[in-house]
Amino acid sequence: MSDKRELSIGIFDSGIGGLTVMKELMKALPYEPMTYFGDTARLPYGAKSREVIIRYSIENAIFLMEQNIKMLVVACNTASTFALERLQQMFNVPVLGVIEPGAEKAAKTTTNRHIAVLGTDGTIKAGVYPQKIKRHLPDAQVLSVACPLFVPLVEERFVHHPAAKLIVKEYLQPLHDHPIDTILLGCTHYPILKRLIQEELGNHIKIVDSASSCAENVVWTLKNHDLLASGNHPANCRYFVSDDPKKFRDNAQNVFGFTLPEVQSS
Amino acid sequence: MSDKRELSIGIFDSGIGGLTVMKELMKALPYEPMTYFGDTARLPYGAKSREVIIRYSIENAIFLMEQNIKMLVVACNTASTFALERLQQMFNVPVLGVIEPGAEKAAKTTTNRHIAVLGTDGTIKAGVYPQKIKRHLPDAQVLSVACPLFVPLVEERFVHHPAAKLIVKEYLQPLHDHPIDTILLGCTHYPILKRLIQEELGNHIKIVDSASSCAENVVWTLKNHDLLASGNHPANCRYFVSDDPKKFRDNAQNVFGFTLPEVQSS
Repeated sequence: MSDKRELSIGIFDSGIGGLTVMKELMKALPYEPMTYFGDTARLPYGAKSREVIIRYSIENAIFLMEQNIKMLVVACNTASTFALERLQQMFNVPVLGVIEPGAEKAAKTTTNRHIAVLGTDGTIKAGVYPQKIKRHLPDAQVLSVACPLFVPLVEERFVHHPAAKLIVKEYLQPLHDHPIDTILLGCTHYPILKRLIQEELGNHIKIVDSASSCAENVVWTLKNHDLLASGNHPANCRYFVSDDPKKFRDNAQNVFGFTLPEVQSS
Repeated sequence: MSDKRELSIGIFDSGIGGLTVMKELMKALPYEPMTYFGDTARLPYGAKSREVIIRYSIENAIFLMEQNIKMLVVACNTASTFALERLQQMFNVPVLGVIEPGAEKAAKTTTNRHIAVLGTDGTIKAGVYPQKIKRHLPDAQVLSVACPLFVPLVEERFVHHPAAKLIVKEYLQPLHDHPIDTILLGCTHYPILKRLIQEELGNHIKIVDSASSCAENVVWTLKNHDLLASGNHPANCRYFVSDDPKKFRDNAQNVFGFTLPEVQSS
């Protein structure tokens, strides 16, 4: 039987956004082999229903399990919101999402207990972030704002266009009526808009996202399950997508500034 | 054996946009039963690859064939671009798309032979519109412009927001360098942005879309195949979607102003 510790960490997202999580994982765990799957044929997940997201997440997880993984990271806020528990029940590997680490980080960051969460329609309507934040900080005041146009703005590289500034202003309007000191970016695409959000709200606002705290959780879980790889040289990472690999590779470069090796079709 | 003429016309789109085509069909053929399918679980189609669009289109067509249809209308520009020929080969009913009728209408509308086509990434890159337009008007000058943010702007009801005006201005910038007299809206969502486009380019520009000429083609084809329904009372229309029926019904009302009866899950 092969040593489980040498298997890879499986990561999936609806598309490209999960690469922000993957990047943090690679920083924290340079010797761990990783297998990324982007479900680009069915993206975006943000506005789809709970049932559809659960079905797609299970299919993505099965694909990664077939690649022989020792752990599963759901690097998509919408999929973490709806499907995490179901995946944890179904599969016999540790399964981690991005909601819990993000909620914990926001709760630790705020000083006045007023937090705003920005996310897709699905994530915001499900209300999981306020619930998780309050588990860490029971008297937190959480304002949730759905920002459905942020993902297309990022994907279409309109971040530096004046229209993006107007759309950010529009979505963040409700925040001005609350003494918010911390903003949680509840979608893996949103870090690309961080500067615009900061400009709109001012430098006194702290902006946090899940990627780095998710990576800390992964390290802790691997240690706890005795699953850390034994190697000490940079590990092999593989990338799969359900639609055109070339487009994914180009977008990774142009939108997120990530140079990827070969990307394969699933 | 049941009378084929009493079967319904099947129509599919990636989501809600095809309702603009359905509306024209209902005007032209009030006594024809129709079955609409919106593939809302996998929308949008605009930026997906040829292979994925063909696969999804075949699956959608099979679903409609199972509902017993006498004719298939592909009410989506991206699916018409990539999958029409394949569907025509596969299924034993007449299959019509929206590209050919739109191209014909644009060719008939222009007086100076300078036409601009606006569409999704997939439709524009495939280059089918210029090709079809030139079949009707060999010396036409066709400028093709991809406008990938138009669909999310419509779906998120940002059409009246100043950001939409800026994005329209940005995408239409290249048109100012050409003596365009006719614009073809090569996506079923774009008619919702017609006023903004007209304001940006001026009233001397003629704006055409495929919906009404597609309906004319359907009438002609039904007659030609002796498939016109015999009834003379308003026919029953059914609506199916692959994701949440309620959301589809709400969006049809709020975005397109269509009040739908019951919408079912596929």
